[in-house]
Amino acid sequence: MSLAEEFQGVRNHSLKICENLITEDFSLQASEEVSPPKWHLAHTTWFFEQFILVPNDPEYEVKHPQFNFLFNSYYNSLGARTARNHRGLMSRPSVSEVRSYRAYVDEAMKGLIQKNDSGLNQLVILGMNHEQQHQELLLTDLKYNLWFNPLNPRVMDIGEYANEPQSNWISMKEGVYQIGYKGDSFCYDNELNSHKVYIHDFAIASALVTNGEYLEFMNDGGYDDPKFWHDEGWAWIKDQEVKAPLYWEKQDDEWFYYTLEGQKVIDKSAALAHVNFYEASAFANWKGLRLPTEFEWEVAQDQFEWGKRWEWTNSAYLPYPGFTVAPGAIGEYNGKFMVNQMVLRGASVATSPNHSRPTYRNFFHPNYRWQFMGIRLAKSL
Amino acid sequence: MSLAEEFQGVRNHSLKICENLITEDFSLQASEEVSPPKWHLAHTTWFFEQFILVPNDPEYEVKHPQFNFLFNSYYNSLGARTARNHRGLMSRPSVSEVRSYRAYVDEAMKGLIQKNDSGLNQLVILGMNHEQQHQELLLTDLKYNLWFNPLNPRVMDIGEYANEPQSNWISMKEGVYQIGYKGDSFCYDNELNSHKVYIHDFAIASALVTNGEYLEFMNDGGYDDPKFWHDEGWAWIKDQEVKAPLYWEKQDDEWFYYTLEGQKVIDKSAALAHVNFYEASAFANWKGLRLPTEFEWEVAQDQFEWGKRWEWTNSAYLPYPGFTVAPGAIGEYNGKFMVNQMVLRGASVATSPNHSRPTYRNFFHPNYRWQFMGIRLAKSL
Amino acid sequence: MSLAEEFQGVRNHSLKICENLITEDFSLQASEEVSPPKWHLAHTTWFFEQFILVPNDPEYEVKHPQFNFLFNSYYNSLGARTARNHRGLMSRPSVSEVRSYRAYVDEAMKGLIQKNDSGLNQLVILGMNHEQQHQELLLTDLKYNLWFNPLNPRVMDIGEYANEPQSNWISMKEGVYQIGYKGDSFCYDNELNSHKVYIHDFAIASALVTNGEYLEFMNDGGYDDPKFWHDEGWAWIKDQEVKAPLYWEKQDDEWFYYTLEGQKVIDKSAALAHVNFYEASAFANWKGLRLPTEFEWEVAQDQFEWGKRWEWTNSAYLPYPGFTVAPGAIGEYNGKFMVNQMVLRGASVATSPNHSRPTYRNFFHPNYRWQFMGIRLAKSL
Amino acid sequence: MSLAEEFQGVRNHSLKICENLITEDFSLQASEEVSPPKWHLAHTTWFFEQFILVPNDPEYEVKHPQFNFLFNSYYNSLGARTARNHRGLMSRPSVSEVRSYRAYVDEAMKGLIQKNDSGLNQLVILGMNHEQQHQELLLTDLKYNLWFNPLNPRVMDIGEYANEPQSNWISMKEGVYQIGYKGDSFCYDNELNSHKVYIHDFAIASALVTNGEYLEFMNDGGYDDPKFWHDEGWAWIKDQEVKAPLYWEKQDDEWFYYTLEGQKVIDKSAALAHVNFYEASAFANWKGLRLPTEFEWEVAQDQFEWGKRWEWTNSAYLPYPGFTVAPGAIGEYNGKFMVNQMVLRGASVATSPNHSRPTYRNFFHPNYRWQFMGIRLAKSL
Repeated sequence: MSLAEEFQGVRNHSLKICENLITEDFSLQASEEVSPPKWHLAHTTWFFEQFILVPNDPEYEVKHPQFNFLFNSYYNSLGARTARNHRGLMSRPSVSEVRSYRAYVDEAMKGLIQKNDSGLNQLVILGMNHEQQHQELLLTDLKYNLWFNPLNPRVMDIGEYANEPQSNWISMKEGVYQIGYKGDSFCYDNELNSHKVYIHDFAIASALVTNGEYLEFMNDGGYDDPKFWHDEGWAWIKDQEVKAPLYWEKQDDEWFYYTLEGQKVIDKSAALAHVNFYEASAFANWKGLRLPTEFEWEVAQDQFEWGKRWEWTNSAYLPYPGFTVAPGAIGEYNGKFMVNQMVLRGASVATSPNHSRPTYRNFFHPNYRWQFMGIRLAKSL
Repeated sequence: MSLAEEFQGVRNHSLKICENLITEDFSLQASEEVSPPKWHLAHTTWFFEQFILVPNDPEYEVKHPQFNFLFNSYYNSLGARTARNHRGLMSRPSVSEVRSYRAYVDEAMKGLIQKNDSGLNQLVILGMNHEQQHQELLLTDLKYNLWFNPLNPRVMDIGEYANEPQSNWISMKEGVYQIGYKGDSFCYDNELNSHKVYIHDFAIASALVTNGEYLEFMNDGGYDDPKFWHDEGWAWIKDQEVKAPLYWEKQDDEWFYYTLEGQKVIDKSAALAHVNFYEASAFANWKGLRLPTEFEWEVAQDQFEWGKRWEWTNSAYLPYPGFTVAPGAIGEYNGKFMVNQMVLRGASVATSPNHSRPTYRNFFHPNYRWQFMGIRLAKSL
Repeated sequence: MSLAEEFQGVRNHSLKICENLITEDFSLQASEEVSPPKWHLAHTTWFFEQFILVPNDPEYEVKHPQFNFLFNSYYNSLGARTARNHRGLMSRPSVSEVRSYRAYVDEAMKGLIQKNDSGLNQLVILGMNHEQQHQELLLTDLKYNLWFNPLNPRVMDIGEYANEPQSNWISMKEGVYQIGYKGDSFCYDNELNSHKVYIHDFAIASALVTNGEYLEFMNDGGYDDPKFWHDEGWAWIKDQEVKAPLYWEKQDDEWFYYTLEGQKVIDKSAALAHVNFYEASAFANWKGLRLPTEFEWEVAQDQFEWGKRWEWTNSAYLPYPGFTVAPGAIGEYNGKFMVNQMVLRGASVATSPNHSRPTYRNFFHPNYRWQFMGIRLAKSL
Repeated sequence: MSLAEEFQGVRNHSLKICENLITEDFSLQASEEVSPPKWHLAHTTWFFEQFILVPNDPEYEVKHPQFNFLFNSYYNSLGARTARNHRGLMSRPSVSEVRSYRAYVDEAMKGLIQKNDSGLNQLVILGMNHEQQHQELLLTDLKYNLWFNPLNPRVMDIGEYANEPQSNWISMKEGVYQIGYKGDSFCYDNELNSHKVYIHDFAIASALVTNGEYLEFMNDGGYDDPKFWHDEGWAWIKDQEVKAPLYWEKQDDEWFYYTLEGQKVIDKSAALAHVNFYEASAFANWKGLRLPTEFEWEVAQDQFEWGKRWEWTNSAYLPYPGFTVAPGAIGEYNGKFMVNQMVLRGASVATSPNHSRPTYRNFFHPNYRWQFMGIRLAKSL
């Protein structure tokens, strides 16, 4: 498949995700952390326009002079932008104008890809990976936004909850291991450099924690005993009056959760999702176990199945030895977020096809829950 | 015109206001105080359904069991409701479903009006007046919501700024005056009872304060000198960094304002709008004058033109002697808001036809500015 | 008694209030609305220094150049000042230095009073009245601050709760009444001008509402039914989880309150205190009655006993006809607070001797409870 | 020196720090993060009472039944406690009562130490180290609290700013290093277990960053260019309007800082203090360098002088391999804080004698500045 074809495939997938939405759904923004579908569709397009077309195609004319203001996400070096919590207020341009914007940029991009001598390929691939990241957010933000609707709308099926197999312990030996990406294909700067890490004896679970296991923790008073919790986690559950994972709701003694297929009775044998780092840690403490480090996860990952849940690790999101920030706006992609976030490894049911690998580092603040975040347990030996 | 025809006329007017909107505009809610157009369209419909159809038409079936939850505004006696700041998050029901809801209720209402022996007329007229109040909010909320859009959308012309005539002083004599509504037509409970008020000698301006006059106050440092301001007003302008009326923006030494026709250079000879009570009071103090009381306004109003701006008075919103709260949900209409609000008198360019009279009492918190609020000066003699 | 003697009497009374305090108590500030005893002692002294000594005594040297910054309360025209919520952080000057400051200013003031030809008397009397106002706050702030201490300290007895007599209705006739101060002694500017008000037939209770009557309201679900409450009051009790007056605490089915004598079982026959305007209004609504206006209270007050509680009225704090603001800093005393506050009439157990009269207008935001605020009921006839 | 003598030495040092304070200073609490001197004196005493005397001395009687409530800091397993931001409101017990409490517990402790067969020694030593930690906080909290006083009080000299020597680069070779404490003396649980870490080639500066170097960063627009900053750091400086380290103030083009000796002109050749992790990182980025990891710092520390400043590392505060939480309340000492904090290494001018070692891990949220936090630069080779 040619790069232009791959490009168009990624672009089409974003629209595919939205195929069941009504026009009104495209503007939903229920909190500052999530973005409306229309914004995701426009912002990923803007990324190609600003980072590739404008600097490299002298004949390219920007679609609209204010789209740079409207659809910049966080690139300070590219100027002022819409306040993050106002993204849902941009009723204009309309959904149909944003679709036109996409088509317009797609044509220009394919023209540029075909006439360029591969010097831009790396940047095009970055843009495609960027869009794939937003495809996951598009889905998870949508779920979060629709959850506020008392009508419990059903919009699509992505197989959120499937049976999780029986778990067993995979043991790994102490020693120096190689960590980080070292192939020739695409990776993010935060996966570099490939470097050595000393790891001590440990074991890691072959399966994820299930809803049923987490329910045992809840029924055993897990949310009522501070000894399982980080101090901040305890403050968070008390302040927010949290008693269960996100989207869970108890009705007449039965637990339900909201899914993109509508509200359902929880499936005890499926992998748990929508817990944050505090909850993941508290659950592990209650079990007398712990979360793996991101390094342990990476060196053991070829011995277990993964890909349903982003899995919390006990590693903070920090630069690898020799990490350097790229010059210009692209340099704002990863490095500036390396504080106060925890690393998640793996991929989830919402991750786009071909957008995962063993060295991929996802990261979120420890209180976030709206991604398909799950738990895999570990222990020191 | 029959009551059914009047009813349909009021109902049509709500849709007429929205005729230039695109589907995406119908969900905008830029702050907790304003509501989306779709919500106004649905809530005014719900009012007829809940207060008239459900209790009085045994054959009526509610359109949807959850619309009572979705479209209740603040009637505690009618049960739980959507959080006020979540009104913009209800992407479903769609705009077209809300239009169907309106048509469905209209039919049922007209049927009920025709077969009833006028016992419900008073309630129907209250519902029509309620909808007219929301028509004004629909317009002013829309202006506020669209103002957040950097594209400065133009959606309609309601003649926001027209020339204001020269002002002169109208003097009134001390004595006992009759205040409040005493006719046979519709009025709100807060205009009753008609009662006596002792008023001292005063004069009131025949014209409203203009943009040009307010600009003199601004240029004279009006926003920088605490001696003109209430203590709370001063704290408010410092905290919010306010330097001008709402919607005003300075570009290269020239002042512009946003209107529903798009952004324009300010017209100095037009009546000022979008100042709050603190600003109105500070301006009056700067002039060595004051705002009128609502009683002074009422007894002098037949001697000047009014209807362009809601005019701030220096009267707090309080019950008239002998005021009583109606039983049931209708009793929540006015009385429970009688604290911490100031009375405005008159009507504005956004007021619906036939929805104003000399005894009408509008009221807002002293910091609100998004209505077409203006200033008429007064002085004691 | 000479003015100098009266002056010294007022000054001594402030120290008398503090006689049982330990040094540590003098710095307490539990919220922005209350001030530490040391601050009250210093601020009332600063008032005499800045408004009388500095402008009128050419030989007077200010005690310390930064005391104007430290002890200004809210006079914008006198320059910058300590942030209100930082008053408790001024460990220096010490309590003993503030006592020296008081003695130093007292000497200078008495010298000035004796040598001046009465031209300053009005200002001296204003300063004395200002200090008497702070004496009340000193007591009520102290109660509030000490209430945070789990040791329930006992510091003095001011007879907070005494038996309230049986109540009966006092009826008054419709007509024009004279309102406001018109004698030759001291009054505040907000009591002027004496003017005419038209009052309709009404009756007012001869006694205050008791703790026992309020407990009936509580036991009858008064805090659970929105129909008794202003919309803002309902939001306030839900947000703050209020179930009882300030200082009340339930232990094993019995209600206690904190007093300056320590914690006690409530006395059902004593006059209720520490309710805000929302609670006072809700109680009145529950009774099918209402609060009096400040005008009704004033014209009826010579027919009942008052002086134990500040009594909430249903009048907003607004200027009387012809009210004018004095030039300079003294003009900041009252006028700038005339928005969003309700008038209380009477005096309380914490009011200093000789600091009450029938035309006195106290005022507080409707949510405040820490003064000895009570309820007297009224009804229209 | 016997353990009892060492114990008394530590206890005396706390009082020594307070020797220049006046009674009013002992209650200061300017923000939730800092505590009043009186609280530190009482809380360290409570620690011995609750963790050693109550469980181990059957004859010991607690000084006061409510001191457990008043002086618990964050031990959930020991019951309810004073809200952290209310510590400054406890005017009672008085300073002198807290001194008595200290003497009472000291006597009981010395009795217990002398009669016990060393089984408790480890716990006594933990209590002494706990008190030494609070001695540092006592000093730094005091500085913070007094800084709010416009009188710039001078209370003691601890040599905050001394000349920093010229810096040069110390290079270290790649390989596996041993990290963590492995001696026989006291260490905290977070320094265990001693374990292997793989470190890559790096160099570390022999000296700390000076005020003069940081001033160059400021003058070069360091606070105005987002490219040097973490995204959260940039948001923090914009939100807080930060332009300089804590305690710095510009007067007529000259920079001053507040010290415990009063306000002084900054000394350009002294080691910088009072910057947070965001500022430390931004400074390093501006230099084209980086902060060291805590492991790099530990393996290189014997080749440079340290002890003036707590030094920010780029390591998040996480458990070492095999870390386990002790059972009971002592287990709340460290583990529950292992999220969202960064490690600082070294010691500062405020650290108590004998309270530092190369493996000591201090930790704070990345936005905190009130400790004597400084910067040591590093680079990868």
